[in-house]
Amino acid sequence: MRVLSGIQPTGRFHWGNYFGAIKQYIDLQDAHDGYYFIADLHALTTIREPDVLRGYVRDAALDLLALGLNPERATLFVQSDIPEVSQLCWLLMTGAPLGLLERCHAYKDKTAKGMKADVGLFTYPILMAADILAYDSNWVPVGEDQVQHIEVCRDLARSFNAHYGEVFTMPEAKIVPGAAKVPGTDGEKMSKSYDNTLALFGDPKELRKKIMRISTDSRPMEDPKDPESDHLFLLYRLFASSEQIEEVKAIYLRGGFGYGDIKKRLADAADAYLEPARQRRAALEGNPQLVDDILKKGATKARQVAAAVLERAERACGLKNSLPQSLKK
Amino acid sequence: MRVLSGIQPTGRFHWGNYFGAIKQYIDLQDAHDGYYFIADLHALTTIREPDVLRGYVRDAALDLLALGLNPERATLFVQSDIPEVSQLCWLLMTGAPLGLLERCHAYKDKTAKGMKADVGLFTYPILMAADILAYDSNWVPVGEDQVQHIEVCRDLARSFNAHYGEVFTMPEAKIVPGAAKVPGTDGEKMSKSYDNTLALFGDPKELRKKIMRISTDSRPMEDPKDPESDHLFLLYRLFASSEQIEEVKAIYLRGGFGYGDIKKRLADAADAYLEPARQRRAALEGNPQLVDDILKKGATKARQVAAAVLERAERACGLKNSLPQSLKK
Repeated sequence: MRVLSGIQPTGRFHWGNYFGAIKQYIDLQDAHDGYYFIADLHALTTIREPDVLRGYVRDAALDLLALGLNPERATLFVQSDIPEVSQLCWLLMTGAPLGLLERCHAYKDKTAKGMKADVGLFTYPILMAADILAYDSNWVPVGEDQVQHIEVCRDLARSFNAHYGEVFTMPEAKIVPGAAKVPGTDGEKMSKSYDNTLALFGDPKELRKKIMRISTDSRPMEDPKDPESDHLFLLYRLFASSEQIEEVKAIYLRGGFGYGDIKKRLADAADAYLEPARQRRAALEGNPQLVDDILKKGATKARQVAAAVLERAERACGLKNSLPQSLKK
Repeated sequence: MRVLSGIQPTGRFHWGNYFGAIKQYIDLQDAHDGYYFIADLHALTTIREPDVLRGYVRDAALDLLALGLNPERATLFVQSDIPEVSQLCWLLMTGAPLGLLERCHAYKDKTAKGMKADVGLFTYPILMAADILAYDSNWVPVGEDQVQHIEVCRDLARSFNAHYGEVFTMPEAKIVPGAAKVPGTDGEKMSKSYDNTLALFGDPKELRKKIMRISTDSRPMEDPKDPESDHLFLLYRLFASSEQIEEVKAIYLRGGFGYGDIKKRLADAADAYLEPARQRRAALEGNPQLVDDILKKGATKARQVAAAVLERAERACGLKNSLPQSLKK
């Protein structure tokens, strides 16, 4: 199965990004033909500072590779390196009813808040459809909030195929099991907008400090506590071995412990878990040419697939000034 | 000056298309660097039958070349052969306020009539802007009805340049002088939608028959008549020499003539005028490889310009995964 996943380069990844999505997506590379792209064309709708965008794209590549994306197995590339996607995007626009986009919630949410939408935000489900269809993708792993956009993609593919013949492979949304709910430092869902994130990469000491400042409740130390409803435990579980998890679970249920101790255990476990990735990242950072080569190789491979799909689509709708049948000798 | 003109391949050209626009646009090739493209990506929003579109694109190329577009002097190409235009289109979309498109009259007119607009019709001023900006165009010859879309293009270029630096050449709309008002066979403006057109190419006998059936008024033959208010005379003037025009003008003012005589003169003049173009067209039709080569050569030249513009634009907004300055050795 070809599995496609686009990652928005909109800042450094945090634990929520990783355990809530990226980890599961990367894991799919083992059993499937994984295509992973860094969605810089999408990011343009929000990031209007060129150096920031360039840095984020670079960071996304380094982070993904350090986190285990294996370029020997999966195909990693940058969206804007594939011109065929923009070309396909226009073809899909010509048949798309405006209403299809007006119903999309990313746009509706923004305008409902009285914010001015730009054309890029309005039409981005069509670019996303082009991304998916360009590689004959079978599965698109997504969170619940993206299912609607996969439906838009399927609608566009279905109506194109119905009118012009079978051109596009019909993709399916795949809600990935095992995505963890990752609480932030305040116990709410970890999210950049809540300013409660913990970084995957960065200074380990800073991270430890931030962990030690995670908010906790003020129940007496001696009380037994339900681990499943405590965000410190939920965070610990992300990094710990099953033995460690059982041990800490027992501590919670027994009572008579300080949150400071759990924080220390969390910091140690996170450190142990993240250290190999940090080292891989540092090595990659010291070898920019290698990263360039990986992205270039990925783009070359992705373009081959996309070019074949685009050619099918263009010929189907009468583009490319090939001679009409009657003039062919 | 680089002059850009896009021609929609939406059917065979009639006298109105030619004398009202195409002739003036082609004439610009003598004093300027003319870029002429056949807008098949735009046509997709209305022509959904692939063979029809392919045929129209071919016809447009043959017609333009037969009518005097000189590929040694000007650059003739097909829009969809330039991927950079679709790529630029997305870049321009990301910064474009939705309101800019909502104000465009092609879209407003259609929705006001209760017709369902598709995304392609809604966003086509942005594709048009990409067409114009991709070639560093200085002038875009247009009719009054297209001035608004050039303004949209200028708005997009201005705001892109203001935010990202001077990337785009600012184009100007050029209302071309000498565009003739061309009446149709019923005296109304010649237009496909009024079904009152006279073909540029096609069977000469058919054309003559159609001319002989042009509607006329029922004033007595002997009455003197004002030539300027008679559509037969206005049509005759398109093809006749200045001597011929003066002669027929005198007949009108004197009175005592039949419209049948004028129709015959019109048919003869049109025939004499169109015959060389018909012959050129027949020769081109017999040499499809030559036409292919012209379009290919044009596309190659146009792509060189467009690729440089796209690269400027992409780098300006932080695309292309070049190393950030800090990592450059």
